[in-house]
Amino acid sequence: MSQHTQALTEFLAGLQYEQIPDTVLARTEDLFLDWLASALASAGSHPISLFERYAEQMGPAEGPARIFVNGKSSSAYFAALVNGASSHLVEQDDLHNSSVLHPATVVFPAALAAAQDLGKSGRDLLVASVAGYEAGIRIGEFLGRSHYRIFHTTATVGTLAAAVAVGKLMGFDQKQFTHLLGSAGTQAAGLWEFLRDAADSKQLHTAKAAADGLLAAYLTKDGLTGAQNILEGDQGLAAGMSKDANPAALSDRLGSRWALVETSFKFHASCRHTHPAADALLDLMQREQLQADDITSVITRVHQGAIDVLGRVVVPQTVHQAKFSMGTVLGLIALYGKAGLTEFHTHALTDPRVGAFREKVSMMLDAQVDDAYPARWLGRVEVNTRDGRNLHGAIDEPKGDPGNTLSREELEDKFRRLVAFSGARSADEAGALIDRVWRLREASQLNDLA
Amino acid sequence: MSQHTQALTEFLAGLQYEQIPDTVLARTEDLFLDWLASALASAGSHPISLFERYAEQMGPAEGPARIFVNGKSSSAYFAALVNGASSHLVEQDDLHNSSVLHPATVVFPAALAAAQDLGKSGRDLLVASVAGYEAGIRIGEFLGRSHYRIFHTTATVGTLAAAVAVGKLMGFDQKQFTHLLGSAGTQAAGLWEFLRDAADSKQLHTAKAAADGLLAAYLTKDGLTGAQNILEGDQGLAAGMSKDANPAALSDRLGSRWALVETSFKFHASCRHTHPAADALLDLMQREQLQADDITSVITRVHQGAIDVLGRVVVPQTVHQAKFSMGTVLGLIALYGKAGLTEFHTHALTDPRVGAFREKVSMMLDAQVDDAYPARWLGRVEVNTRDGRNLHGAIDEPKGDPGNTLSREELEDKFRRLVAFSGARSADEAGALIDRVWRLREASQLNDLA
Repeated sequence: MSQHTQALTEFLAGLQYEQIPDTVLARTEDLFLDWLASALASAGSHPISLFERYAEQMGPAEGPARIFVNGKSSSAYFAALVNGASSHLVEQDDLHNSSVLHPATVVFPAALAAAQDLGKSGRDLLVASVAGYEAGIRIGEFLGRSHYRIFHTTATVGTLAAAVAVGKLMGFDQKQFTHLLGSAGTQAAGLWEFLRDAADSKQLHTAKAAADGLLAAYLTKDGLTGAQNILEGDQGLAAGMSKDANPAALSDRLGSRWALVETSFKFHASCRHTHPAADALLDLMQREQLQADDITSVITRVHQGAIDVLGRVVVPQTVHQAKFSMGTVLGLIALYGKAGLTEFHTHALTDPRVGAFREKVSMMLDAQVDDAYPARWLGRVEVNTRDGRNLHGAIDEPKGDPGNTLSREELEDKFRRLVAFSGARSADEAGALIDRVWRLREASQLNDLA
Repeated sequence: MSQHTQALTEFLAGLQYEQIPDTVLARTEDLFLDWLASALASAGSHPISLFERYAEQMGPAEGPARIFVNGKSSSAYFAALVNGASSHLVEQDDLHNSSVLHPATVVFPAALAAAQDLGKSGRDLLVASVAGYEAGIRIGEFLGRSHYRIFHTTATVGTLAAAVAVGKLMGFDQKQFTHLLGSAGTQAAGLWEFLRDAADSKQLHTAKAAADGLLAAYLTKDGLTGAQNILEGDQGLAAGMSKDANPAALSDRLGSRWALVETSFKFHASCRHTHPAADALLDLMQREQLQADDITSVITRVHQGAIDVLGRVVVPQTVHQAKFSMGTVLGLIALYGKAGLTEFHTHALTDPRVGAFREKVSMMLDAQVDDAYPARWLGRVEVNTRDGRNLHGAIDEPKGDPGNTLSREELEDKFRRLVAFSGARSADEAGALIDRVWRLREASQLNDLA
């Protein structure tokens, strides 16, 4: 085994509640509430109902773990599967910048389902989630940008992050964590190819990452062995799925750097790659008091990853695809001042002015922006106006980034908006859920968290 | 979508029982019996019991589909999972040479579980299995040798092969098959890294390939969409996981070439990469009337894939690892004249003469053998004897290859030996199962096939 995998697995085995700073625990609660909002917001939407039906066909009629979109219960495997699918649909779940990993949608479905199955406490859930975030983020950074060009990191690395969280709940030692990484890593899968067809694979990816990670942990607990060097070995993850892997990232400042708090909340309901430009445009328009009609063209200066992910969408055919259309997002910003779930579902495809604005928007690779990425997601836009001006907008930290984060009040507001959007819970129920999450550290069990 | 994927999916949608030659149907029955032997042979062995327990923890208490190792029932998902794990353990399941795919262990678990769930007939099962073999073999050939260097093709391609078989049972049209390939392909995973540690991932791989393929089909049936060009797209399977993909392989002589009948049965109970050398040594020893003691060294001239897969095992620590040790396999051949399950479990690790013979064996890359591979698996050995002779042995078709195949009598004998090895069924039950398989074409339903 390499020294980096050794250090990572030793850290995971040794991690204790007491050593995690209060700010990290509080942020974990923030991220958990934010995740729950996304899981509930997709109730009733395609393709989540397909996963619900699959759980009913293949799973037990009821069980110890809760499925949020429909309030039913199942075994931990199917709860992780459906909750994993549902929390990534509305494009409002969190993102860690430098790993390009969405940790919440893979870590929390697996960790909560296992915690409910195993009768664990709120503190156990928090420690397990921290372990999942810290491992997943470092493994994402390790696999690097070349991995993300082809593979959906949240799917591939997500399997390992989910596995680690469940392994921590089970109290794994260093050897068990090594086996666990082996069994989770050899299941890591998920290709970006679906994006150009607006296919449903994104939900399949997070569903499977959460569920497969959980499966790996349960089998490891019972004695399944795994490769000892799955990350760095000659026939391991990096060998097969990366060209620029950085092993040192795996053990980067374990126990002193808390990567979890670097995670960004999503403010706009679109692909995170659109957010820097959206914020830069909004800032520019407010500063210059521009209306959408005043603008004749917008050039967004972006990193290569944005072009890879967004470049396929020309004319969006679905709301979900619209969230990956830079022009559509900027059109909503220019016309409505925001790009939330309501704007997407009410205006993104039907307002002809949004479509017209979309045609004014282009993306251009920018060396400075690309160099900063993925550690920093810089927003740079160049706007030409009807009256002949050439204006530049720039923001260095999109709204929701750690340096520009959301307050608990803003998170509660986002939670209420997302839950109201789907109608999955009443306003009172939403309030009660918020209260429960803010008291997560006191909960002796989580069985009725639903 | 590419023309090759188009042609493949059209072929799969249009495939009818009536167009499949009798020899192909008969060989499918042969392969099915051979698969069942492997599934039953692992009863009671690690790590199969872990998968059985997982199915009990996460699945329903009973269901329409049968788990062979323990005679229990579950939903189709868990039957596919456990039967997929169990049929690849004893290294006796079939292999298609040029794709380096073990089709049976992924296609039959998924197809049979779905057939039992959906109340399909023996003919339906045969057609579905043919579809799975024809698609899987071509996709394996498409991904090429570079894929197999890092990825366990039976795991990755196996997910697609299993999915296709279940999709055929469900009567998918061309569009559904395209979505299905997208949803199965984006789940394709499985790395060879586990091999050097003798870890349990091989069983995890086939379990997951069968179960994930089945999951993809059930979700596609209900309307889950997938990438339209998962095989050849810029961010698809070949882009991420192959350097020498050959798109033309996908549509190679569809409907006239039946790739299924090119599949080899395994005669020795070891990794297929050891078989050509084992047969060449056996042939040479019989011809020259040599005893093991007469031999001072054996150089096996092999293809690169053999070195990649077998080269990691120096001194085998487990019976399973011994099956990947060229020296151990040749030691059993030299000392016992065969390398069956009994020889592995009784002698491979404990007979010091086998260990001593192992030290005499080396592998050397041979350009001619490597050029012929994977279409042909040539066996070439060079033996030096105590009395100073330098002898050469050669076979061009290992026992079990299509041109040197096993008769039904030999298959029945192998079935009885494998079932007796684990004791999963009595001799009478084994006989009844054989009879059922030979009458598969007449079966109106398969629900009690267990």
